[in-house]
Amino acid sequence: MESESTFSVTYQVQAHSKSEAQQIAEQICVEQTVEIPLQTLSENALQYVGTLKGLTNEKENNWHADIEYNKRLIGEDITQFINVLFGNSSLQPGIRVLNIEDTVLSELTHGPAFGIHGIRKLLNVRKRALSCTALKPVGLHTSELAERAYLFSSGGIDIIKDDHGLTNQESSPFRARIAACVRAVRKGEQNSGKRTLYFPNITTSPSIVFHRFDEAMELGADGVLISPQLAGLEIMYELAEKSRCPIMAHPAFSGSYTIHPTHGIAPELYYGKIWRSLGADAVIYPNTGGRFEISEQTCRAINDQLRAKLDNLNPSFPVPAGGIDRQNISKWISKYGNETILLIGGSLYLHPEGIKNAASEFQKILTDYEQ
Amino acid sequence: MESESTFSVTYQVQAHSKSEAQQIAEQICVEQTVEIPLQTLSENALQYVGTLKGLTNEKENNWHADIEYNKRLIGEDITQFINVLFGNSSLQPGIRVLNIEDTVLSELTHGPAFGIHGIRKLLNVRKRALSCTALKPVGLHTSELAERAYLFSSGGIDIIKDDHGLTNQESSPFRARIAACVRAVRKGEQNSGKRTLYFPNITTSPSIVFHRFDEAMELGADGVLISPQLAGLEIMYELAEKSRCPIMAHPAFSGSYTIHPTHGIAPELYYGKIWRSLGADAVIYPNTGGRFEISEQTCRAINDQLRAKLDNLNPSFPVPAGGIDRQNISKWISKYGNETILLIGGSLYLHPEGIKNAASEFQKILTDYEQ
Repeated sequence: MESESTFSVTYQVQAHSKSEAQQIAEQICVEQTVEIPLQTLSENALQYVGTLKGLTNEKENNWHADIEYNKRLIGEDITQFINVLFGNSSLQPGIRVLNIEDTVLSELTHGPAFGIHGIRKLLNVRKRALSCTALKPVGLHTSELAERAYLFSSGGIDIIKDDHGLTNQESSPFRARIAACVRAVRKGEQNSGKRTLYFPNITTSPSIVFHRFDEAMELGADGVLISPQLAGLEIMYELAEKSRCPIMAHPAFSGSYTIHPTHGIAPELYYGKIWRSLGADAVIYPNTGGRFEISEQTCRAINDQLRAKLDNLNPSFPVPAGGIDRQNISKWISKYGNETILLIGGSLYLHPEGIKNAASEFQKILTDYEQ
Repeated sequence: MESESTFSVTYQVQAHSKSEAQQIAEQICVEQTVEIPLQTLSENALQYVGTLKGLTNEKENNWHADIEYNKRLIGEDITQFINVLFGNSSLQPGIRVLNIEDTVLSELTHGPAFGIHGIRKLLNVRKRALSCTALKPVGLHTSELAERAYLFSSGGIDIIKDDHGLTNQESSPFRARIAACVRAVRKGEQNSGKRTLYFPNITTSPSIVFHRFDEAMELGADGVLISPQLAGLEIMYELAEKSRCPIMAHPAFSGSYTIHPTHGIAPELYYGKIWRSLGADAVIYPNTGGRFEISEQTCRAINDQLRAKLDNLNPSFPVPAGGIDRQNISKWISKYGNETILLIGGSLYLHPEGIKNAASEFQKILTDYEQ
């Protein structure tokens, strides 16, 4: 088989010995492909079995297995690609996907339509880190949410995204909320003298999500928020393919894949390479030091994968969230660099002088840092 | 707040003391709802915060927390229901959803359109357990797969489902495969003198999956196979709402939610109550004693949840897979009972006298067991 017709995936497997690791890796080669005893296979089916190309011991009980898959297994089907990557193996403990060859992603997908450069262009901000907050909580009425959007925008914040739990509740129905918040943000811009982008949450059922997307665009939203693990990974991708606005991805319901050190998909691969390939222009992830258990090293790895060269795909903005408050903004920019969107929620709402001042202080720190 | 306007969810949390457990449970009440410091909340937003109604110590470090959520959080949105259930909490270790009050599921969904009774009616089989096999492997050409379907059908097997990795590969494109396999199954029925149902795999991108479903129906398929965690949980539900044919659900890519004893969603809740509510007429799950680590107790709990009374929703067939071979069929029926579909793959393909004989032996054991 020619090398162009395969793609390679690195798995981490837990095993007490090389022979056990090899056995597990060889099971992956079968489980993720033909899923049948090898002795029953004909010549043409045998070509579809994964091939173990390398097996190395990383640390005690922890092995890295490089497996090569035939591209004919997936055709051009992204869903089937995810299935080959981790479909049945998700049902086994001790298997974690660590990396995927870049080319299969750039052949299967177009990546983000806007990316870092596109979002910067909409804001006309060339270099500094960007500020973001969440419009919340669920339960407020439309006018109350719009008032908050107005104050954040008046303070000059770069991006206001809906809380990912705001959908179409009676307290603030989707269409009315988007219309009111777009107006409020535009009004606030006249006070700040700069652009503020508003990204409503469109996450909902597949039969409605495309309609919500169109409504958001029609009502003048500047981008959208979606939780791809709830709405569907490929629904995000199909929206990205329309190239109409930036898409910010929220990690709700995705943690089961990423938080186990010996199972799942490495967060830098999932939130970094995979969600970027599937069209996220900005990816929210749980930051270290906050309510979520994640190391700074992993956060840096996610940042790197979102920004790194990946063939011809646009880079995406990392959006660390959690553990960042208005007192430690510079610390996080100095750690993560300017190609970052800092998402701060609670701490801005708690500012003793109100939301508008919280937003303008946030902006000042980011602008000063750039100098 | 009236009790009709809330629904309750039981979480298992890991904690060293009651006060720690209480703190975690109270965090869930906030994290899954308003996600903002409570001191910033107005009166109407406060009603949306979850309420901890009970906290009991089950065994060392393992607590059960009963949380009541306001139904206004979800409206009629199933996606948002999953978000409230386990959106941000999926990003935390040590939290597992154990149970959900039945009524919220029966209010939000219609459940399976066919269920156990509907599948039995299509087959005209009143009492005995049903037989099922997987048509595979990927890599075979359409004519080879159709030949296998013909032999299984000639042996009188009840259900033939596509392998979940068969999609639209060049080796056997979707439309041609379905047409050929439907013809082959109908031809085989003339040898066996009984019905065999064929369920092709329609799992693919959201923009294509509804078309594949229609094509499968048009070409005479008797049901469909879908991997809801790959295709989208609610895409399965939207297909079920059409009530056109039974849907068999495959667990690919879902294991990360269900295999961790201290994280995720209990398998009997997820595959049992939730997938049933979302329209699966039959649910494949990894059986104990096979290639997957799962206890017999958990398998029995999944069976129970699929079959139990759940308000007005139809019961669904459990489909244990893995660990079942042609030598131990009666053992599994005696364990799981007749309201079960036994899925056997590899062991039938390995039968020394071929697929047709393997299928007719399988049928004979199920029929004899009924007597």
